[in-house]
Amino acid sequence: MTEPLRIALAGLGTVGAGVVRLLDRNADLIARRAGRAIIVTSVSARDRHKDRGVDLARFAWEDDTSALAERSDVDVVVELIGGSDGPALALARGAFAAGKGLVTANKAMLAHHGIELAGLAERAGVALKFEAAVAGGVPVIKGLREGAAANRIAQVYGILNGTCNFILSRMETEGRDFYEVLAQAQAAGFAEADPSFDIDGVDAGHKLAILASIAFGTLPAFGDLALEGIRHVLGADIAEAAALGYRVRLLGMAEAGAAGLFQRVHPCLVPVSHPLAHVTGATNAVVAEGDFVGRLLFQGAGAGAGPTASAVVADLIDIARGVVGPPLSMPTDLLTRAARAEPGERRGRAYLRFTVADRVGVLAEIAAAMRDAGVSIESLIQRGVQADGSVLVAIVTHDGPERCVAQALERLRGSQSLAGRPMLMHILD
Amino acid sequence: MTEPLRIALAGLGTVGAGVVRLLDRNADLIARRAGRAIIVTSVSARDRHKDRGVDLARFAWEDDTSALAERSDVDVVVELIGGSDGPALALARGAFAAGKGLVTANKAMLAHHGIELAGLAERAGVALKFEAAVAGGVPVIKGLREGAAANRIAQVYGILNGTCNFILSRMETEGRDFYEVLAQAQAAGFAEADPSFDIDGVDAGHKLAILASIAFGTLPAFGDLALEGIRHVLGADIAEAAALGYRVRLLGMAEAGAAGLFQRVHPCLVPVSHPLAHVTGATNAVVAEGDFVGRLLFQGAGAGAGPTASAVVADLIDIARGVVGPPLSMPTDLLTRAARAEPGERRGRAYLRFTVADRVGVLAEIAAAMRDAGVSIESLIQRGVQADGSVLVAIVTHDGPERCVAQALERLRGSQSLAGRPMLMHILD
Repeated sequence: MTEPLRIALAGLGTVGAGVVRLLDRNADLIARRAGRAIIVTSVSARDRHKDRGVDLARFAWEDDTSALAERSDVDVVVELIGGSDGPALALARGAFAAGKGLVTANKAMLAHHGIELAGLAERAGVALKFEAAVAGGVPVIKGLREGAAANRIAQVYGILNGTCNFILSRMETEGRDFYEVLAQAQAAGFAEADPSFDIDGVDAGHKLAILASIAFGTLPAFGDLALEGIRHVLGADIAEAAALGYRVRLLGMAEAGAAGLFQRVHPCLVPVSHPLAHVTGATNAVVAEGDFVGRLLFQGAGAGAGPTASAVVADLIDIARGVVGPPLSMPTDLLTRAARAEPGERRGRAYLRFTVADRVGVLAEIAAAMRDAGVSIESLIQRGVQADGSVLVAIVTHDGPERCVAQALERLRGSQSLAGRPMLMHILD
Repeated sequence: MTEPLRIALAGLGTVGAGVVRLLDRNADLIARRAGRAIIVTSVSARDRHKDRGVDLARFAWEDDTSALAERSDVDVVVELIGGSDGPALALARGAFAAGKGLVTANKAMLAHHGIELAGLAERAGVALKFEAAVAGGVPVIKGLREGAAANRIAQVYGILNGTCNFILSRMETEGRDFYEVLAQAQAAGFAEADPSFDIDGVDAGHKLAILASIAFGTLPAFGDLALEGIRHVLGADIAEAAALGYRVRLLGMAEAGAAGLFQRVHPCLVPVSHPLAHVTGATNAVVAEGDFVGRLLFQGAGAGAGPTASAVVADLIDIARGVVGPPLSMPTDLLTRAARAEPGERRGRAYLRFTVADRVGVLAEIAAAMRDAGVSIESLIQRGVQADGSVLVAIVTHDGPERCVAQALERLRGSQSLAGRPMLMHILD
């Protein structure tokens, strides 16, 4: 066996402690598989004295995180601090400047600075790896960048945020509304005190921007994403969807077409016959459609100390085995800047739900707006009066341009007949 | 860009022609991703003049397949001849002897000679890659060997034979019996004229032996597998399973325990809540349970020209990128010879179906055999008289040692009450 691969670990939260635990517990196995030992030499975190359940006394401690990159006993820096900028970004730049590889789980940093960092890594001739940044323990970055590398990818989409999927699953099984389940999830530690990053689709968007770059050979373009989360999904939406043969999932979806690259995070109706309809709880799943391989599905735990540590250490094993490779799917100078495709020309079916006043003419107004925008209705359900006196109208449209649906909603904006904003979900067909 | 990677292609059936088509159609994309072009220089197949729908005139032709390994214009040999021995094995040995890498889709050869070939590749310092040998286009070899490399794997199991899954899915949706659907599948080209390799579990067994070696760091041991196929599954079994909340799937399963490595291909009852219950048609899916990552699922097309070519070319791209690595999960001298664990001590629930004569005392005899073997019955359904005068008795046992179920069946062997052999399927819990 050759010399050990020496690691500096920045950030000792649940994932950081999980990496230490994993490298300890499976040390022999990892050394056999990697061809050499992988050892932590130095660590850095905010609070030196906090009990993290792992023995840190054997590692050198740096109060200043960025000092890790300078150490002569470090080959690879593992960044688990988080945050798109600040100390994480400084450390990443410092690692490449010092000619050291970087492994990170930091999707926000990659979504915003991935192209800069990939370029720095390339020029330094070192690895930048980030399997843990998308879908936790699921090796989907590797699956796309290497396993599906022979394919032109038409579409990549999936369930990228475990918190949202946990909440939607609970709403489904318990028949509750969003805010009730969110409160439960927060109490149980499955959702953050400030959950907006998750429930408004930002986190899924970061992951999607990375996936799309790998799948399509384009520059990561988080700013081009349309983001919508799940806070407006009602229990009633999930019930209507179920009655129609669908489940509601927050999907991140990117597709390449003549008009450019279309990227969106949006709650969607998934047919029960589709594998994503059966992905419940905090599980993540990614589908890629390739021109030769057809549909590939990768599924597993999207978060948590164990799964995330598994992905971080898989990257370290790759590096220990001598695999550097391009950080994204190809050298950065070959990546293209994709035009941002607008949703308007996209075709599909949609689910619309209106909460309306219980009075004469409301349905006629909605139906007229649809007709005038050229939206053809496949099915419509009106449910009797709710506890608050309102009425629900749920519509599934025929296949058509998304532009028309947007126009119909525009026509209805400000209507006195509507109580609250209409809900629009796209249907995965 | 550096020099192209030069390929010799042995075998020009559907998959071989698919590889040529893929390397043609996605040549630019592949070159960008691989860092250099991947080009075929020479080919060999049985019949030089057959029309395969691709232009072969531009490649050098060798009548003698093994001559491909000797050519100076070849870096890597792609073996798509098939068969565990004969010309495929000779070519593989020849490639390593000549210091060339080998990419193969040949599961039979790997299951029987994998350890020899991995050793030869290692000593020659060249690649041996075989993503296409297991689950077609699904990058599950990569997923286990690299993506899950940090984990101790407790269990790996999955749907490894598309023909069987196609037949079982059809039996399920159409309510037909095995031989009817097999005939349909043969007529449609989904099953071979001699289907025994598929339907008796041999093909799934080859794939399982390879997966288990990767997952557990053990020598491939095809001879240690217990194999049972699907020819004794009745439409009635699928209906009973459905009534109980299960689907019938042919699973290959390997698990590591104190008693050694247990490997089996067997028709199983899969709960509808499990993702494998929703894998229909010719799709393959593999589940791995790791100590840190939890449950990973990989799913996609298990066969066909496009998916298999996708996996072959993914391996070539890895090689073009300079990734050699150990062919199995670690250097061959670190692989261990696992003891063969006997099923007897394994615990689980089982489904048993008896076709019995319609007469007094039959049920008492079956129940007594169960009781005497210490098998506890969870549920029992007796269905009225069939067209042929026989009666079906379906039993689900409580969790218990498999040994006891085997003993109960042993006690009933030769009983005049039974018409035909009983059906035993294990339940995936």
